[in-house]
Amino acid sequence: MSTPAIEQLVTMFSKLPGLGSRSARRVVLDLLTRNRKLLEPMSREMQRLSETIVTCQQCGNIDVISPCHICGDNRRDPHTICIVEEVADLWAFERGAFFRGSYHVLGGTLSAMDGKGPEELGIERLIKRIQGRGDIQEVIIATNATVEGQTTAHYIAKRLEALPSLRITRLAHGIPVGGELDYMDEGTLTAALSARQSM
Amino acid sequence: MSTPAIEQLVTMFSKLPGLGSRSARRVVLDLLTRNRKLLEPMSREMQRLSETIVTCQQCGNIDVISPCHICGDNRRDPHTICIVEEVADLWAFERGAFFRGSYHVLGGTLSAMDGKGPEELGIERLIKRIQGRGDIQEVIIATNATVEGQTTAHYIAKRLEALPSLRITRLAHGIPVGGELDYMDEGTLTAALSARQSM
Repeated sequence: MSTPAIEQLVTMFSKLPGLGSRSARRVVLDLLTRNRKLLEPMSREMQRLSETIVTCQQCGNIDVISPCHICGDNRRDPHTICIVEEVADLWAFERGAFFRGSYHVLGGTLSAMDGKGPEELGIERLIKRIQGRGDIQEVIIATNATVEGQTTAHYIAKRLEALPSLRITRLAHGIPVGGELDYMDEGTLTAALSARQSM
Repeated sequence: MSTPAIEQLVTMFSKLPGLGSRSARRVVLDLLTRNRKLLEPMSREMQRLSETIVTCQQCGNIDVISPCHICGDNRRDPHTICIVEEVADLWAFERGAFFRGSYHVLGGTLSAMDGKGPEELGIERLIKRIQGRGDIQEVIIATNATVEGQTTAHYIAKRLEALPSLRITRLAHGIPVGGELDYMDEGTLTAALSARQSM
């Protein structure tokens, strides 16, 4: 136990994902000793973001502007929309520069248990967005390969079917690059086998 | 990649111990979405600490006051001083309430390689502190059980020998509580055996 003022910050840090009370203590101690130079600018940056961060009205991404810097980037293909569950998934795509279309963040999956229906996920807003533009050519449903993610994907695909001349796709299943077959589950192996490609 | 303002905070977080770029990203994303309520108070707390935190002039602990809340606590035994390497070690002792004496934080160990001599560790200041009070009965040297820690312990013990009627002790070596013999190294087993106690 240190002084209450420090303990308070430790408690806050321990609420963050991946940080337990022990690692939170280590981080705070570091900020108060070795990395003390970082404490003030970090605090300032957090304050600034707490005041400026907004959810993009168009795609659901978070940014300091809305439409976000992806939606506002006219070098990106506006005819392809990639639907993801969370902002974290959008960031994962953006880590590589391989996707140049736009996004739509659902903010979760359909879940009866958590009381999340089509309304909570804003599916209507998504459909309106696609209909509204009229020039969307492809919707890639990139929800997680979990039961909830796939259920949500099927629901969205069903709803989009009615729209004319729209290609609806999903990510390929298969062996992750660098993955070892020995560690793959049966479902992955079956999927990878049935989607096998000529060499 | 997200927006530059967010990336900047991710970079800051990734400088903290135990956080890589991936986990820093996860933490920041959490602070900007699920835990957004935490962002502002956390920033405020960090700002406040960056302005108020000081090193205790007496023992080297960090606190918002100097002498720190341990040195200033008159319910604690001022006749026993426990010497530790880092503030983190002091915190480790304070997690349990088993030690009721005072501390002295060295801020490291003697290290020719890092250019850390007795002067850098403030050994002179420590000796003056003990001599100055005149009523110190015991000094527990609780440096780490590493080569550097033990070298430092021996050096300090040597320097303190000259002081009259002062008991100089060190922490016991042995099997950690809950530890399995199978996983202990030879040094630990030897130490535990030679320090064996009657049951």
